[in-house]
Amino acid sequence: MVIHYPNGKSYTPPVKQAQKKKRPKDISFSNRGMSLEDDLNDSNITYLTQGRAVIHKKPTPIQIVQVDYPKRSAAVIKEAYFKQASTTDYNGVYRGYYLDFEAKETKNKQSFPLKNFHQHQIDHMSACLNQKGICFVILRFASLNRLFLLEAADLLVYWNRQYQEKEKKSISLKELEKNAHEMYYNFSPRIPYLEVVDQLIEDDVHNIE
Amino acid sequence: MVIHYPNGKSYTPPVKQAQKKKRPKDISFSNRGMSLEDDLNDSNITYLTQGRAVIHKKPTPIQIVQVDYPKRSAAVIKEAYFKQASTTDYNGVYRGYYLDFEAKETKNKQSFPLKNFHQHQIDHMSACLNQKGICFVILRFASLNRLFLLEAADLLVYWNRQYQEKEKKSISLKELEKNAHEMYYNFSPRIPYLEVVDQLIEDDVHNIE
Repeated sequence: MVIHYPNGKSYTPPVKQAQKKKRPKDISFSNRGMSLEDDLNDSNITYLTQGRAVIHKKPTPIQIVQVDYPKRSAAVIKEAYFKQASTTDYNGVYRGYYLDFEAKETKNKQSFPLKNFHQHQIDHMSACLNQKGICFVILRFASLNRLFLLEAADLLVYWNRQYQEKEKKSISLKELEKNAHEMYYNFSPRIPYLEVVDQLIEDDVHNIE
Repeated sequence: MVIHYPNGKSYTPPVKQAQKKKRPKDISFSNRGMSLEDDLNDSNITYLTQGRAVIHKKPTPIQIVQVDYPKRSAAVIKEAYFKQASTTDYNGVYRGYYLDFEAKETKNKQSFPLKNFHQHQIDHMSACLNQKGICFVILRFASLNRLFLLEAADLLVYWNRQYQEKEKKSISLKELEKNAHEMYYNFSPRIPYLEVVDQLIEDDVHNIE
């Protein structure tokens, strides 16, 4: 049974059995990371509906090469390529604060590999921190189904460490247990990350001038 | 001569004369609005480089239908459609404040038609205002080459007016001269909109709790 979450995606009517095309079996790659993304989109819709925050995932950047304009119907993109994003995936506004974050998953059980992040995302988060934004990453250990919110300032420490010490290309689970904020799945919102953000604000870690 | 502005677009090497394909003459539609967008992207890069603000244009939302994965080369999107955005085009962080805006152009000389905006953008700006974001629209009269920054709170007044009074489907130039902030093109950044934002912040219009 396909469950259609209210995740902002357009509803595609179910295809009749007879018309169904055979799908390739190796769909794991394209689904990689979808679960965390779905949960976050769902949470953002909940927050938006409740009037608590306005947070959106940015669209995937695409380089469009060729577009057809058929008469009396919608423009069709016939050739395009995925581009690397220059920012993180999520941003928005909450109680006057600018929120900016990235979400990543790993199948590892002991540590979170830093190769999940790219230099341009690190640079973007640094720039946002300089502008007094509240920046963080949401990390999920898929096999353990554990969720952490790690502040960008702490991520930067681990990021820089990998260039100084050998064999430290990841953040250990123990380090996250100590330095990040563990979050637990809920019903609505499914990932209640604003509770951690409230804590960050109250801790005066992020003073707005 | 083609001038390549530092607008974040990938550089395309110039095609030799002999290889040049004839281009269709009616390129005006596809270029509509490019000038204001280019100037804003250029301004945002200037602000980012100067470390003054982190403002980005969101990618155009695309509904991807079919993707080919050729062996040993990049994934090619073979069928996709333009989707309507659920937010405004630009957002980011400046001095701890959340900035959110939309940019629109008209060829009119006397008034700015409200049909340039959509209900979902109005809803988004209202929601951002409720979260104490700084929201506005940048309006350009292409024929006059005049630029205005209109605060979202004022846009909402004009937007709601169109449902109350007949024949008021637009904001007159006189109203903008009185209630909006006129901006003048500069060299770097080309559209110095943060100067107006500074003014808004100093006027205590947007107090952060």
